Amino acid sequence: MDQKGISRAVIKRLPRYYRYLGELLEAGVERISSGELSERMKVTASQIRQDLNNFGGFGQQGYGYNVRHLHTEIAKILGLDRTHNMIIVGAGNLGQALANYASFERSGFKTVGLFDVNPVLKGVSVRGIEIRMTDELPEFIRTHNVEIAALTLPKTKALEMAKCLVDNGVKAIWNFALTDLNLILPKDVVVENVHLSESLMRLSYNLNTYSGEEHKK
Amino acid sequence: MDQKGISRAVIKRLPRYYRYLGELLEAGVERISSGELSERMKVTASQIRQDLNNFGGFGQQGYGYNVRHLHTEIAKILGLDRTHNMIIVGAGNLGQALANYASFERSGFKTVGLFDVNPVLKGVSVRGIEIRMTDELPEFIRTHNVEIAALTLPKTKALEMAKCLVDNGVKAIWNFALTDLNLILPKDVVVENVHLSESLMRLSYNLNTYSGEEHKK
Repeated sequence: MDQKGISRAVIKRLPRYYRYLGELLEAGVERISSGELSERMKVTASQIRQDLNNFGGFGQQGYGYNVRHLHTEIAKILGLDRTHNMIIVGAGNLGQALANYASFERSGFKTVGLFDVNPVLKGVSVRGIEIRMTDELPEFIRTHNVEIAALTLPKTKALEMAKCLVDNGVKAIWNFALTDLNLILPKDVVVENVHLSESLMRLSYNLNTYSGEEHKK
Repeated sequence: MDQKGISRAVIKRLPRYYRYLGELLEAGVERISSGELSERMKVTASQIRQDLNNFGGFGQQGYGYNVRHLHTEIAKILGLDRTHNMIIVGAGNLGQALANYASFERSGFKTVGLFDVNPVLKGVSVRGIEIRMTDELPEFIRTHNVEIAALTLPKTKALEMAKCLVDNGVKAIWNFALTDLNLILPKDVVVENVHLSESLMRLSYNLNTYSGEEHKK
């Protein structure tokens, strides 16, 4: 199945389909029409059919989607059918919060290491994961088959660390530092940004522009 | 200035302009051409001119942009020219991590309260902010002019809490719970989602699809 050239907008929606299908599975629903799924997700049925057609389509006319099959197929597309080893670099509040998310592991993202530069944190454990110093990173990445690094360092330290991680074999950076890593990293490194302060600014924009009486409809 | 009807894509880019202009200001740069800004941000100059024209345009032909003026104007558009009182509901790892972000305050988002349902946390302080129990919420929202609530509760508790927050006057929810609040809240309530596990799935998709030799160019 050729997945290249699928629009970012569709990719953005896939995890949401995956989530709804997971909830349906938990509720024991075996089959659902695009119409019913549309009603639950508040997306048009034609949008759903179009989105899923990007991947070859999984439904049968007049018969709906097999929930388990669709859930499994979307998992494969998202790469959730195998385990990804992840490290967290930056064991401050946010890094520790991420380390405590047991739910990532259920989707196949296994936190195998937690790193910081602050010697005070050395040896402290978070959910059974010991905090190590960053000088151990190169060997750790090699010996633990680390694919993903969550980067939760301050932005002043993030660029240099990102280069170091990639030089040592990390293939994807989950970037929480407020800086544009993709401008300095090789093109084949995946960068997924979570810029919290920019998210808050978008909220503020919408609050400023749309909130209150005038937007009521 | 009419800001309605501006595309989400432009709004998504505005905080990034704001960040780059802030860095230029710090570096003492007073004036910049769209060409120079384009080079730094790796966005085309015509994209920059187009984006900023949405807000009336701030540049003068052959003269470039006044950095401080543009920074100030974008701040106004984003609603950063005034203080927004924010509470955090859910004082677990993530909620405490957010409470520790002093940088939000520098952009005008002031965390005035931190709430949880777990009595063990009652009275614990995070960066000087005392954790309160959620039964105090209604009065607190009224007396502290709370506009924004960051919601970091598990998804099973998030829906009911979101309704309660909105009923008591909260206008915007910064939603970290993996559930679609906009399906149940009134249309004029602003919801900005940060769905960490979905972000990780997009990373995984890109890793699956684009990483490695074939994407090198």
